[in-house]
Amino acid sequence: MSPPKNLDHLRVVMVRSRNPLNIGAAARAMSNFGAYHLRVVTPYEKAFREAVSAVGAAPLLARAEEHGTVESAVCDCSLVVGTTAIGHRELQHELYSLEEAAKKIRRKLASGRVAILFGSEKTGLSNQDLSHCHWLLRIPTREEHRSMNLAQAVAIVVYELSRGNLAVKAKNKLTSAAADMEAVNRISVVLLEALHASGYIAPRSAAMAEEKLRRMLRRFQLSDADAEVLLGMLRKILWKLRT
Amino acid sequence: MSPPKNLDHLRVVMVRSRNPLNIGAAARAMSNFGAYHLRVVTPYEKAFREAVSAVGAAPLLARAEEHGTVESAVCDCSLVVGTTAIGHRELQHELYSLEEAAKKIRRKLASGRVAILFGSEKTGLSNQDLSHCHWLLRIPTREEHRSMNLAQAVAIVVYELSRGNLAVKAKNKLTSAAADMEAVNRISVVLLEALHASGYIAPRSAAMAEEKLRRMLRRFQLSDADAEVLLGMLRKILWKLRT
Repeated sequence: MSPPKNLDHLRVVMVRSRNPLNIGAAARAMSNFGAYHLRVVTPYEKAFREAVSAVGAAPLLARAEEHGTVESAVCDCSLVVGTTAIGHRELQHELYSLEEAAKKIRRKLASGRVAILFGSEKTGLSNQDLSHCHWLLRIPTREEHRSMNLAQAVAIVVYELSRGNLAVKAKNKLTSAAADMEAVNRISVVLLEALHASGYIAPRSAAMAEEKLRRMLRRFQLSDADAEVLLGMLRKILWKLRT
Repeated sequence: MSPPKNLDHLRVVMVRSRNPLNIGAAARAMSNFGAYHLRVVTPYEKAFREAVSAVGAAPLLARAEEHGTVESAVCDCSLVVGTTAIGHRELQHELYSLEEAAKKIRRKLASGRVAILFGSEKTGLSNQDLSHCHWLLRIPTREEHRSMNLAQAVAIVVYELSRGNLAVKAKNKLTSAAADMEAVNRISVVLLEALHASGYIAPRSAAMAEEKLRRMLRRFQLSDADAEVLLGMLRKILWKLRT
């Protein structure tokens, strides 16, 4: 039931891209997120050649397929999705936000190939390109600044599609174990003595001060290592206060 | 209780960026997703000047603050988050995936400023930069290809943070209302006549053919407009068949 944990069925199709840097950067992002299949449709010849031959070009780019038409680039896919920055009023197609679209696409990827079309930097996808699309997706941007950099749009789409496939081994705990209460108490004792010695705590209010101090030290959630350092510092201060 | 619907408290801090294109592209993505405050810490002077003076540079870039140290760039922030491509074993800090991190950051943005640090293209954040960070985030990428383009990393982080702030007006319904059954039946009738007239349907199997045809037409889920066009076409064909 769950979708496959990779984007092997995905085809990213860049149509008439002009800037070699964008093709290269899109390929790099695809590699980052595990989408390996790039197809380009009549890119500016020079742009594509430059991108492929760039130093450090991803192997992914060297393997990119070149197609003469959108039709040929999508003919083995069972779902074709266009990307657009245009609002829904002007569009003939159904339109989904990237998040909704990604859910639909991931389901489809379980059983067949899906092509996602990205238009040129200048004009996006033409009406003829769109005629090959089942529906469209839009990355939610501000209404006042919709037009995105092409390579960033590709990066965000493959990032969203890879959601849940790739994990970061989170490290949510402190490296050092938390200090135990004994350590915290040792600190309290020394700190209290230091505060008495310094005259910070008047004898009359000592009990209340002690209680407040212990509560404060607990809130610090000191690590083992921190507690040791703090205790050393306070001992030194107390020694100095007493000399 | 819910976080604020904008990224006004966010400070994106680019530390020692080298490539003016990256600073410009990061600024553009920030503008796309409604994050308006960029700070740069000792960028390669030339890179920054070039980015600011580039044709079409976002107003956001012209307003970017230049800082001499990370300390100065984050001093008014109550949470400082570093970005890293490094695995958790080598790190001293707590580490969260972007998705987890974004949740924590959005909560914090409700009450105070949050800085997110991005290191240079070549070396990332230094240990000294990291000493200013409360914790780190990583965009989940493939283990074998972790290193992302700097501007794409900024784009993906602000995209994830803006999640839920910006809406795409989805258009999940067909533009035209679905054709009603009467329209579908009219089509069936004309199509059947045409099929009879053409000899496609033999008189003996007519009843079964009719049933199959109606079911097929229902599956098409025709829109009002489509149904009208189809009916016109079939009428024309039928007329021709009969002449």
